[in-house]
Amino acid sequence: MSVTAPQGFVAAGVAAGLKSTGKPDVAVVVNRGPVKVGAAVFTSNRAKANPILWSEQAIRDGVVEAVVLNSGGANCFTGSFGFQTTHQTAEKAAELLGVSAGDVLVCSTGLIGTGDEIFRAKVLAGTEQAVAELSPDGGEAASLAIMTTDSRPKRAVRSQDGWTIGAMAKGAGMLAPGLATMLVVITTDAVLTAEEADRHLRSATRVSFDRLDSDGCMSTNDQVTLMVSGASGVSPDPAAFREALTGVCLDLAAQLQGDAEGASHDITIEVVGAASEEDAVTVGRSVARNNLFKAAIFGNDPNWGRVLAAIGTTDAAFDPYDVDVWMNGVRVCTAGGPDRPREDVDLTPRATQLLIDLKVGSATATILTNDLTHDYVHENSAYSS
Amino acid sequence: MSVTAPQGFVAAGVAAGLKSTGKPDVAVVVNRGPVKVGAAVFTSNRAKANPILWSEQAIRDGVVEAVVLNSGGANCFTGSFGFQTTHQTAEKAAELLGVSAGDVLVCSTGLIGTGDEIFRAKVLAGTEQAVAELSPDGGEAASLAIMTTDSRPKRAVRSQDGWTIGAMAKGAGMLAPGLATMLVVITTDAVLTAEEADRHLRSATRVSFDRLDSDGCMSTNDQVTLMVSGASGVSPDPAAFREALTGVCLDLAAQLQGDAEGASHDITIEVVGAASEEDAVTVGRSVARNNLFKAAIFGNDPNWGRVLAAIGTTDAAFDPYDVDVWMNGVRVCTAGGPDRPREDVDLTPRATQLLIDLKVGSATATILTNDLTHDYVHENSAYSS
Repeated sequence: MSVTAPQGFVAAGVAAGLKSTGKPDVAVVVNRGPVKVGAAVFTSNRAKANPILWSEQAIRDGVVEAVVLNSGGANCFTGSFGFQTTHQTAEKAAELLGVSAGDVLVCSTGLIGTGDEIFRAKVLAGTEQAVAELSPDGGEAASLAIMTTDSRPKRAVRSQDGWTIGAMAKGAGMLAPGLATMLVVITTDAVLTAEEADRHLRSATRVSFDRLDSDGCMSTNDQVTLMVSGASGVSPDPAAFREALTGVCLDLAAQLQGDAEGASHDITIEVVGAASEEDAVTVGRSVARNNLFKAAIFGNDPNWGRVLAAIGTTDAAFDPYDVDVWMNGVRVCTAGGPDRPREDVDLTPRATQLLIDLKVGSATATILTNDLTHDYVHENSAYSS
Repeated sequence: MSVTAPQGFVAAGVAAGLKSTGKPDVAVVVNRGPVKVGAAVFTSNRAKANPILWSEQAIRDGVVEAVVLNSGGANCFTGSFGFQTTHQTAEKAAELLGVSAGDVLVCSTGLIGTGDEIFRAKVLAGTEQAVAELSPDGGEAASLAIMTTDSRPKRAVRSQDGWTIGAMAKGAGMLAPGLATMLVVITTDAVLTAEEADRHLRSATRVSFDRLDSDGCMSTNDQVTLMVSGASGVSPDPAAFREALTGVCLDLAAQLQGDAEGASHDITIEVVGAASEEDAVTVGRSVARNNLFKAAIFGNDPNWGRVLAAIGTTDAAFDPYDVDVWMNGVRVCTAGGPDRPREDVDLTPRATQLLIDLKVGSATATILTNDLTHDYVHENSAYSS
């Protein structure tokens, strides 16, 4: 069901010929209200795609009527022609839906530099077709149309207290911080103001997508949008809604991690005993981005020396000679020296747990990453050809 | 000839059984004077190996009589026992050479966590054997004994104006900033004070080893040592010496790049038009550390979008929509948009040139890196097993 699980939403996904495979590549999600509130967070990359430049402006009034998403082309670094394509896409959807173009967000994903006349014509035609096929059952089709190198669609639904949250996501490579690389649309029929939606969304993404760091690379097109229809008529308890929304985001983040390009291990890096949450995130991220550690995990090698070498590059508060490291429940390093033998650690399961105890405080953070594999190199060396 | 090319130096390299292959693994380089000046720069990683902790203290007085180096074990995170091993190694060499232990530097390289009783016994026996074999012809043997995953030794010699600089280096993986991962010993028979030696060494490493960033990982054991014998009796022109020393360091850095683990491309990233040299370095480094870009080069794919996505994550002064990118002489991106077609770029040669013009100033910097390959993943997933 994904984004059409909550009341008040219709969606569609169609094949507009942007993908050479002929698979679906344009999705539209529309909020039928009665509330038309939206909130969004964007990539922190300064190299922003045209749909990001457009959507950053469009979201300012906190009103979102619809989102148009395409795969098969990022429309990034395509010049003013590319920006006009995004603008025309929003206008086309707005005209067909009878709303203002300034309340239509646009998301694109695919190869950077793709956005010529043919791209524009296909996106506009796809938008028209998708609007014609809008349906309360369209959530699944929409989730398929935003896939790129994803091997499977990512969806989540949560219902409680009379309201529902639905969501879809795409993202399998370029997963990185300051938003893991992705397109995400989350819908809810709970009643929220624009200010509440924005606050809840930022709170949820900060501890979910922002802590997914598959390969340290940051996309130009990341966007997470929350659309609020209020169709349930229920004003949720703020804490309960934030918790549910965070749960949906964590669920999607885990799905993205589990489908990361070429990965053979999903690594959960838990940092405890930190002086601050910021320190814990910094330490976890330094390990998540260390190619030597990630290659070792691919080789089922519990190489804790590479963990210490990675965290030693940070300015977080800790003594490198007083750190404990656990892998899959086995303490392989204590107080900066060897502990249990490497042979005791079984790294063959896909799910991998790395626990780092800095022993200086009580703050914690969890970072999700993947190993560095032959398949990662293969997929990313052949992507644009 | 390497480190014994200048007058006043003897060296040796012996097999002490630290390497399971039986290849040479302990080297000693001794300064016979008359000057006994030294300077050294160390890894900026906070997780420092025991030989780094020792050598940082020993270099403080600017006097270096000898350097003992071993491969086959990093003696890092091996506790106080490991530090005592380093201390005993310096004392053993000092006793045999009739000098002060505080004037003997120690360098180790190999697997982190290696440094038990057997390691200690072999290092001490190897030191004794190497001192017994010291010779003015020992430079080549010494350069072989410090190799780890290197496929070939790295040596450089430069003579002019009556003085000579000789050098050896090891390093093939974990090459990274704030000193590319390596052990380097440089010798000269020029007459220099400790202060001059230190200043020249920092000036040379700043634009050579510090700009080699093969895989973004920073070692715990990096050390570059300059030993000054003054045996030529010639006090060099400071600018000429600094230029020659920088040339030697750049030569070695290129050798390290050319032998980086698993690499199939040596990528020279030249950033021009920057507002400051610091900005140019930051921008170059962001590309050197971007796995998606590095995998694309492995696949001979001139994916300039990944270049812009990488530099967009920095805070350097530039407009992402006013940047030019050249690959192997072909301008593939201009003003943040597509220029010449990808097909015009031939990325099959190992030597790869990436030129980024930020168009905001006149500062430049060059960063050396490698591509991300199947072989890199393979070598680093199997290293400790």
